[in-house]
This record gives sequence, C-alpha cells and structure tokens, in this order.
Amino acid sequence: MTSTSLEQRKSRAGARSAQKGQQTRASILDAALALSSQKGLEGLSIGALAEVTGMSKSGVFAHFGSREELQISVIREYHNRFEEEIFYPAIREPRGLGRLVAMFDRWIRRVTVEIDSGCIYISGAVEFDDRPGPVRDALADMVRTWHAALHRAIEIAREVGDLRPDTDARQMAFEMHGLILALHHDARFLREPGAVERARRGFEHMLARYAVAPADGSR
Amino acid sequence: MTSTSLEQRKSRAGARSAQKGQQTRASILDAALALSSQKGLEGLSIGALAEVTGMSKSGVFAHFGSREELQISVIREYHNRFEEEIFYPAIREPRGLGRLVAMFDRWIRRVTVEIDSGCIYISGAVEFDDRPGPVRDALADMVRTWHAALHRAIEIAREVGDLRPDTDARQMAFEMHGLILALHHDARFLREPGAVERARRGFEHMLARYAVAPADGSR
Repeated sequence: MTSTSLEQRKSRAGARSAQKGQQTRASILDAALALSSQKGLEGLSIGALAEVTGMSKSGVFAHFGSREELQISVIREYHNRFEEEIFYPAIREPRGLGRLVAMFDRWIRRVTVEIDSGCIYISGAVEFDDRPGPVRDALADMVRTWHAALHRAIEIAREVGDLRPDTDARQMAFEMHGLILALHHDARFLREPGAVERARRGFEHMLARYAVAPADGSR
Repeated sequence: MTSTSLEQRKSRAGARSAQKGQQTRASILDAALALSSQKGLEGLSIGALAEVTGMSKSGVFAHFGSREELQISVIREYHNRFEEEIFYPAIREPRGLGRLVAMFDRWIRRVTVEIDSGCIYISGAVEFDDRPGPVRDALADMVRTWHAALHRAIEIAREVGDLRPDTDARQMAFEMHGLILALHHDARFLREPGAVERARRGFEHMLARYAVAPADGSR
C-alpha cells in the first residue's frame, strides 16, 4: 500500500464520517423543530429530544453544545424553511403587485398548515417577549428579516406603479401581519371556521385602498 | 349576657372573618395577575405565589384549592378588569360609530399599558392553543365574550346607519383584532416605535371602507 492510497482512504473515511455527522444533526434538528412547534421553544430540552430521537443525551449534546444553541439552531432552520416556502418562490414572480400577492398567499397557506402544529415565530414572540438573551435576539432578527423583505416587495410594487405613490410600506406590512396574526389566533386558539377566508378578504380590502386601479381593462 | 347579644357578636365576628378572607383572596389574586402577566398563566404556581405574597403554600392553597382553579380565577379577574376599562365606559357612549370607536380606542390604550406587562389574552392564547382543559376553555370563553360584544357594537353601528349596510360584523372585528395583535407583537416583542400610530392609522383605513360618509358637513 502506497502512502498516497492510505491518505486517500483516510480522507474518504473522514468525508463519510462528516457526512454521517451532518445527517444525524439534520435528523435531530427535524425532531427539534417538530417538538418546539408543539411545545414551544421553551419546551425544547436536550433530554426531551434524546427521548424523541432514541439517542443518548450525550449524543444530542455532542451536536448542540447547549440548550440555547439548540434553540437558536431550530430558529435558523425554521427561518430557512420559511424562506424556501414563501420568499424564494415569491421573488421568482415579476416585480410588482403579483410578487406581493404571492408572498401573502404563500404566507396564508403556511399558517393554514401550521394551525395544527403551531408557528414558531408567533409562539416564540410571546414566549420570549420579556426574556432578553441570544434566543430572543435570534428570533427577533429572523422576524425583522422577513418584515424587511415585505417592506421591499411593497416598495417595488409602488415603484413600478402597482401601488399608490403615497403607500407607506411599513404601514401596509403592519396591516398584512395583523391579518396573519388574527388568522392564527382564531383558527388555532378559538378553532373558529372561516378565518382563512377573513384573512384573504381583509387583504382584498387592503388592496382596494393601496393598489392603483388599472387605467383600462387590459390588466 | 343574653343569648341574643351572643348571637349578634358571633355574627359580627363571622362577618369580619369573611371580610378578611375576601380581602386576603383579593390581594393574592392581585399578585397572581401581576405574576401571570409577566410569566404567563403557566408560570403561575401556588409555590411562586406564596413566595411573592409572603404567605405559606397552605395559606394560598386554602383560597384556591388547585393551580387550575387559581389560573381560572386569574382569567376571570383579568376579564372583569378588561370589561371595566373597555366595555362599560364604551357602552355609555351613544349607540353607533362613536361607541365602536370608543371600544377600539380604549382597547389600544389598554394594550399600550400592557406593552411592559404582557396581555393575558394574547399570551394565554399561545400558551393554551394546544392544551385542552378547563383553563383553555375559560380563556376562550372570555375572548369569545369580548368578540361577541364587538360584533354587537358593529351591528348596532350598521343598524343606526353609521356603517355601510353590507358591513360584515365578524369580518370587521377580525380586522380590528388583527391591528391589536400586530401592535402587541411589534411594540412588545420587537420593541419597535410607531406601532400605536400604525394601529390607529389601520383603523382609520378600515373606517374609510366601512363607515358611511356623512351626507353633508353636519357630522
């Protein structure tokens, strides 16, 4: 055996081991996301996660050095999925109202799916609203990133002339967010039917205020 | 000493004791309300309350037989105060838009005060959205009572001709609630300035849609 092939073997074994480590980390993260959707980020602990995944506590601990690090990793993973489901498909739409409508529509659909599981952004905001620290900071950063994306989409729709020139992007995003929060509250907490339709109708009411009426019937 | 005066003394002593019991109960409830505004209804325990009030656990327990009963008493007390601050003063306004505007205005002011302490309705909805049981039921009942009062105020404003005849009371209440939730989220969780003004402006936008424009300048 030459030294080169030994090096190659070692390297391949190292790559396999790193890959396996990443897979384990991903599957722990999957379980952590499901657990914290149901029990809240504060319901997340290395012990509970070890039980769910059938791993040892030290096994879980090896991947996420602390409970706080685990919570932050869950927030990042949630944010990545949120972006993949809502943001990236929406920005493939042409600049303007169509893109903004796609964002709201996908946001509504996501909350609808989460009525049974819970939304980490919404429950997390209540869990951490008076608990300073890195978990709260991570959560607030992610929420602000999403709000900034909404503001930008509104500004673009205004720039291309789809929204009235006096549209205040922060005001419009605030009202959109309100509809999403009311939907989550009525559907998940009160189990009331019709909340999705009300959120959609509320958005139509907003568009009647903010959108520029088409000059002719061509749009 | 005649038997009558003995009866009278006993009765007076009993009344004093009952009064003292009620005062103690009221002061425990005060502390419980403050504690659960900060830590959530789930952060409420007989032990924590004994520590805050300087009473023994058994002393607290004598007034609220269980943690669940304590949580439900807190919800009822919160609801009573909510009604006294928002509902009763508002229904002293004449029937119509003025009364509805007073309700929203007082609701906004209450949430503004609660930005530092937290709102039991909003945090409770997230805490108990997937925990069936009597605490969740009590909380949902109180929220539904308030929503019903809002629906009725909107219907009256429509009946007296202040709101458009096609105003859907549940839709309008849903949109009002959304503004309140977005205010609570942005002000309490994100600590963002301007949320109160945005909620007020959002309500003005709603009124531009739902309210009947005055036929002349007399209103």
